Amino acid sequence: MTYLSDYAGRSILVTGGMGFIGSNLARRLVDLDAHVTLVDSLIPDYGGNWHNLAGYQDRLRVNIADVRDPYSMHALVQGQDILFNLAGQVSHMDSMTDPYTDLEINTRSQLSILEACRYENPQIKVIYAGTRQQYGKPRYLPLDEDHLQAPTDVNGVNKLAGEWYHIVYNNAYGLRTTSLRLTNTYGPRQLVKHDRQGFIGWFIRKAVRNEEIQIYGDGTQLRDLTYVDDVVDAFLRAGAREQANGRVYNLGGQHPINLLELANLIVATAGRGRVRLIPWPDQRKKIDIGDVYSSYQRIQDELGWQPVIPLAEGLHRTINFYLQNGEHYW
Amino acid sequence: MTYLSDYAGRSILVTGGMGFIGSNLARRLVDLDAHVTLVDSLIPDYGGNWHNLAGYQDRLRVNIADVRDPYSMHALVQGQDILFNLAGQVSHMDSMTDPYTDLEINTRSQLSILEACRYENPQIKVIYAGTRQQYGKPRYLPLDEDHLQAPTDVNGVNKLAGEWYHIVYNNAYGLRTTSLRLTNTYGPRQLVKHDRQGFIGWFIRKAVRNEEIQIYGDGTQLRDLTYVDDVVDAFLRAGAREQANGRVYNLGGQHPINLLELANLIVATAGRGRVRLIPWPDQRKKIDIGDVYSSYQRIQDELGWQPVIPLAEGLHRTINFYLQNGEHYW
Repeated sequence: MTYLSDYAGRSILVTGGMGFIGSNLARRLVDLDAHVTLVDSLIPDYGGNWHNLAGYQDRLRVNIADVRDPYSMHALVQGQDILFNLAGQVSHMDSMTDPYTDLEINTRSQLSILEACRYENPQIKVIYAGTRQQYGKPRYLPLDEDHLQAPTDVNGVNKLAGEWYHIVYNNAYGLRTTSLRLTNTYGPRQLVKHDRQGFIGWFIRKAVRNEEIQIYGDGTQLRDLTYVDDVVDAFLRAGAREQANGRVYNLGGQHPINLLELANLIVATAGRGRVRLIPWPDQRKKIDIGDVYSSYQRIQDELGWQPVIPLAEGLHRTINFYLQNGEHYW
Repeated sequence: MTYLSDYAGRSILVTGGMGFIGSNLARRLVDLDAHVTLVDSLIPDYGGNWHNLAGYQDRLRVNIADVRDPYSMHALVQGQDILFNLAGQVSHMDSMTDPYTDLEINTRSQLSILEACRYENPQIKVIYAGTRQQYGKPRYLPLDEDHLQAPTDVNGVNKLAGEWYHIVYNNAYGLRTTSLRLTNTYGPRQLVKHDRQGFIGWFIRKAVRNEEIQIYGDGTQLRDLTYVDDVVDAFLRAGAREQANGRVYNLGGQHPINLLELANLIVATAGRGRVRLIPWPDQRKKIDIGDVYSSYQRIQDELGWQPVIPLAEGLHRTINFYLQNGEHYW
């Protein structure tokens, strides 16, 4: 796995580095002997959490800054080899109640980060965290990268624009960029404080706290899930490979599962909690997209990535993490 | 043509209303006895021009305001039946040198216009001017609405986001919106002051002024063109039809033509000017997309639209307009 040895001694910047995926990536990079700088603004209700760095605080550099601040970003990208660009507003519901903040973070900031790279460090490699939400309601399944992008909420539109700035800067300016379109990611260090960043962290919280998991409708909607270590591996592969430049790749889970089965599996794994079906709230139903799961064929073919952590194992690790560390996340 | 009689007595707001397409649309709406209010900020180098309203100044209301100003837009959408939303930054080159201004006008303003409609006038119907530039480099021709959107410049990304906000607001909030993805539009009242808003106005200017039309490369790139009266007709159909709600439609020309043939036709029609092939400038070549033309099958099937003005006739009218009115446009 030569791509892992590529990271020793390299300078890596991670935006959103104290959040869920960012912190798991950062810890892995430190283990690979990279020089890691994290950028995070610790916006309340977003994913940033000091506890995510537990045990690693002295082995990396934390820089508190907001990606909406172009001056800081101009300074921070200098001297970096790779930027893992994970900062984002990830709540679909929040994007509908406050579309401007979502636009500022997910769209305008991406443009200013890319401008910073273009002017201050055109040799940097940038790996962006996109989302399968960009596709909207599937026309066919599994979703591949050739599926039309027809987002159903403001967050999906803004993430789409943020991604495409990256591709335009690759094609027009030779800035080396890649976008990974993430599906539902789960694992340790995930925000579980509220339910606005996706269902899975919320399900896990409810089970671990021996509370009721509520599922909208009949719970038969299919989803795929990727364990965070697998997602981290995809970022590491994309960051190390020139072949990834200018490319977009779906990530995906091993097998789709419906929400009711997933909730039951979480309850069984935790040995706590319970599940109940409830009617759809109006606002949620409007932006729901039915069954959805992604094909990861392209990234498997081009970068050799596939999800390797089975769902049962990933849930086991995640639930154990919150049983032991829950106090820092509730 | 029942849709035309729908406009008598109705209150219509046109953003970008002093620009090329906006003013042609406004003049037509006045002729149809609509109550027309134009919003335009007359940004220098954009398309707004007082002369575009010649003969109509007293038959409509002009409101100078910038769509980036959310307060004005909140006030202006009130009491309107239809909003033709045409304000935009349309230069691809400018979007690369000043991506933030393009973002503010083409993306953020669209969001604030839609928020204004949602809160102040949820019954309004909104017709947005999208662009085939959203598709980027064609994978197949003609481009249909199912073609992937993979823009090649910042303008394309921002227009794409601006369009999708409209569709999201239709689907999530029931605001009635439609997007027309315009191809190369030409005709009287087009900006011909500089060459950053597309080639055709520039070609016409050069011919009418008996100057040299320069074409990059060998001039064999195919394009389609739509005469502005046909584009106006598409807006009028979309604005009058409930069937158009939540839909995106390509417009297209009658037949694709290559740039060299087009330039020669313009010179022949004008009886002045000349044509020369020159090498591609680097910056232009990077964002060129080769042959491109659109299918208008969907809007023909659903709204009965098709381009009816032949290119020779449209060019004749356009050239005559600039021969007579050029002093207001050079």
